[in-house]
Amino acid sequence: MAIKVGVLGAKGRVGSAVCDGVNAADDLELVAQVDQDDDLQMLIDAGAEVVVDFTTPGSVMGNLEFCVANGINAVVGTTGFDEERLNQVREWCAADGAGNVLIAPNFAVSAVLAMAFAKQAARFFDSAEVVEYHHPHKLDAPSGTAIHTAQGIAQARREAGLGPIPDATEQTLEGARGADVDGVRVHGIRMTGMVAHEDIIFGSQGQTLTIRQDSYDRTSFVPGVLLGVREVAGHDGLTVGLDGYLGV
Amino acid sequence: MAIKVGVLGAKGRVGSAVCDGVNAADDLELVAQVDQDDDLQMLIDAGAEVVVDFTTPGSVMGNLEFCVANGINAVVGTTGFDEERLNQVREWCAADGAGNVLIAPNFAVSAVLAMAFAKQAARFFDSAEVVEYHHPHKLDAPSGTAIHTAQGIAQARREAGLGPIPDATEQTLEGARGADVDGVRVHGIRMTGMVAHEDIIFGSQGQTLTIRQDSYDRTSFVPGVLLGVREVAGHDGLTVGLDGYLGV
Amino acid sequence: MAIKVGVLGAKGRVGSAVCDGVNAADDLELVAQVDQDDDLQMLIDAGAEVVVDFTTPGSVMGNLEFCVANGINAVVGTTGFDEERLNQVREWCAADGAGNVLIAPNFAVSAVLAMAFAKQAARFFDSAEVVEYHHPHKLDAPSGTAIHTAQGIAQARREAGLGPIPDATEQTLEGARGADVDGVRVHGIRMTGMVAHEDIIFGSQGQTLTIRQDSYDRTSFVPGVLLGVREVAGHDGLTVGLDGYLGV
Amino acid sequence: MAIKVGVLGAKGRVGSAVCDGVNAADDLELVAQVDQDDDLQMLIDAGAEVVVDFTTPGSVMGNLEFCVANGINAVVGTTGFDEERLNQVREWCAADGAGNVLIAPNFAVSAVLAMAFAKQAARFFDSAEVVEYHHPHKLDAPSGTAIHTAQGIAQARREAGLGPIPDATEQTLEGARGADVDGVRVHGIRMTGMVAHEDIIFGSQGQTLTIRQDSYDRTSFVPGVLLGVREVAGHDGLTVGLDGYLGV
Repeated sequence: MAIKVGVLGAKGRVGSAVCDGVNAADDLELVAQVDQDDDLQMLIDAGAEVVVDFTTPGSVMGNLEFCVANGINAVVGTTGFDEERLNQVREWCAADGAGNVLIAPNFAVSAVLAMAFAKQAARFFDSAEVVEYHHPHKLDAPSGTAIHTAQGIAQARREAGLGPIPDATEQTLEGARGADVDGVRVHGIRMTGMVAHEDIIFGSQGQTLTIRQDSYDRTSFVPGVLLGVREVAGHDGLTVGLDGYLGV
Repeated sequence: MAIKVGVLGAKGRVGSAVCDGVNAADDLELVAQVDQDDDLQMLIDAGAEVVVDFTTPGSVMGNLEFCVANGINAVVGTTGFDEERLNQVREWCAADGAGNVLIAPNFAVSAVLAMAFAKQAARFFDSAEVVEYHHPHKLDAPSGTAIHTAQGIAQARREAGLGPIPDATEQTLEGARGADVDGVRVHGIRMTGMVAHEDIIFGSQGQTLTIRQDSYDRTSFVPGVLLGVREVAGHDGLTVGLDGYLGV
Repeated sequence: MAIKVGVLGAKGRVGSAVCDGVNAADDLELVAQVDQDDDLQMLIDAGAEVVVDFTTPGSVMGNLEFCVANGINAVVGTTGFDEERLNQVREWCAADGAGNVLIAPNFAVSAVLAMAFAKQAARFFDSAEVVEYHHPHKLDAPSGTAIHTAQGIAQARREAGLGPIPDATEQTLEGARGADVDGVRVHGIRMTGMVAHEDIIFGSQGQTLTIRQDSYDRTSFVPGVLLGVREVAGHDGLTVGLDGYLGV
Repeated sequence: MAIKVGVLGAKGRVGSAVCDGVNAADDLELVAQVDQDDDLQMLIDAGAEVVVDFTTPGSVMGNLEFCVANGINAVVGTTGFDEERLNQVREWCAADGAGNVLIAPNFAVSAVLAMAFAKQAARFFDSAEVVEYHHPHKLDAPSGTAIHTAQGIAQARREAGLGPIPDATEQTLEGARGADVDGVRVHGIRMTGMVAHEDIIFGSQGQTLTIRQDSYDRTSFVPGVLLGVREVAGHDGLTVGLDGYLGV
């Protein structure tokens, strides 16, 4: 029996890619495509067991209140969740017969795994650096993901009692050694033709380990969303972050 | 207080690299270098708390019997352990006041982590392939490590219920798609100048994750051995494989 | 003064990407978009100085006869040119006031450069292998580009008097060492998420040189076409292959 | 008939690796190993046709004067040549029956080719960046090679009339975008375990070209020196830089 899926924000760029993904999966059935002026009741009428919400901070809380109260599980990529909002969702989820909720800032499975592996590996190496590669239209450098990765590495090193990363540099051109994020060097490359890529490099005596993540197009979040749809029924209450579903 | 370390096989190529590593570490003290005609009693006289054994299948069991019985922990890279030998070591370790033992076929931390991450990642991707790169003097292709990696991926895919890896190839030159190891394609490159390197590549919609391991010289096992020396006191009995110490 | 450009096959997938490229370039002006039922006379009426032809083997010769006779230069990506056709085009180009023609099987500048550099480098290295990576829907393995690259390397090695590439492999799983193309090993990886990528690896004592080409989407031919449009006026007669314009 | 080779500075680290390389080559014969207190006359007595000089700025000019005057060709990796010294060598080489001389700052063939290819490729791409990777004991960042590579790219772009490399970065952490070398961004990674590696990356619409150079150990200069030894007889007078021998 296929899982019955409703998509909120179905006409958006992201929502429509989710609809395509659901339609292409044998074990999922797209039963409702809801957009901004539609009545949420159509989810219940269609028998939706899971909804996917890529809408707006302004509408997502109303959507979740309705779904959770009606026992519909939700997979949410909409942004704007602070601790207050998360606590509200937790409260809704605690009611009898409530739906489960997964809220994740990043559904690219490869990126989430890369960061998780980086945290696991960090304490075993003398050196660690992060290099991210993006198209030249990107406004920030380094990327948020690269900063977050470096922070995760730095924290794992601190917890393991490691000292500073070795670096004998005496003569340098300004910027050559990258940005310093909690003691971990981060480099941003801007390159026409590229999409979004990251190298996380670890080194110790005679060896390196490199975790490379490549995003080739803007639909790379789809497999992570479908994973969430398939597994949300088995994760009670609210889960924040896809890593909780990946076992890493 | 530094941990007191004895090295068995101290004059061998591997053993002498271990001695160098111990000498370079502030928290370790090299108290005994034992070679084939030396009396093991010198380990006790020197107060060794941990021994490292890179000797031969012919001498390792005698070494372990002596060390474990005398409460000395052992970190072992010597080959030739079958189930019978492992059971014998387990029995010795079960005695009151016995030493602990770590036996590992591979002490290159980066390689052990790469394989562990590959197993964790495998079930989340449609595609997986392994490419290994070695110097052209290597006699076997693909490498044992690459075969082992592919088997681990194949097992993780089976356990997750994944089907065959997609591949529409109809026209092919013999060998172009690599060797088939339990359904995972493995490619061996032989290249003057290279040492030992491995790419483990996973792909799903719009993204790939690549775990790259590079060994640049023959001392890449040293950090893993020192990790074993530092942590063997905290792992009761016999542990097989360095991954048990890496928490992966 | 912008160069006036007409596009034949303007409504096709490739032709429309060319139109977008011309429109985005300050130094080019799109003056005519011709499709299959349109009269070629509109090229003259619009004052086209250069045409781009991505049409069909059935229509390209008629298009070229018309353009060359009317002094319009042509940049051609249409397939199906054998020696007989090329000779016919050369004859047309030899007339007084005739247009120039560039016919190229591959307009991806990075791929053409990669192959040219591979030929230049080949004679200086002991080892050479080619690894290509494509999406899993590809029907042939290895790719035509990879075979062509390996053939170019093999020829350069022969001309330099180099012997066989060193390879001590004795034990092997079938296919592990890839396909043998004139003595150069070629490996094809098929990976969901990837588009089209190639590593050309050369090795000698203590060093390797890797030429990596990545195509991230299907418009990677556009810069090469625009280069052809800008430079065709300076290359008299017929040129076959973009490398003639790249000076490599 | 093997070429008869003398090595000056034969007991130094570099010189002894050259001796090993000459001994391993079927077409070369090591006839003289000269060190600092030896008489240069032994080169003539041994019938040396080519000498290799990895000595010191203090002795190299005397060595060259002797060799060139006696019709012995020289391959020189010793540093410290300014324009005055080069002119002096040119003058010596102009005499009747004089030997030829190759003076090169870098004999790693892969590195010399990488830089030459970068210069050839630069004018065809919107974007270019350089990333170098070295062990953490290196005192300067970026490496001299990386700076030199970036300068070569910048010059090729200027000569082709290209404008600035596109980069929309507005928000940045200091250093994230690397060092600015004539408008080309250069990043230096310092990583335990690595030796010396460089990525030169070029990008245009939908594609990138990456030229990667890896040095795995300190003998990577040997093949370039032997190439010089084999070909110096065919290059009259003084040649500066190995690229002149590589045809790039």
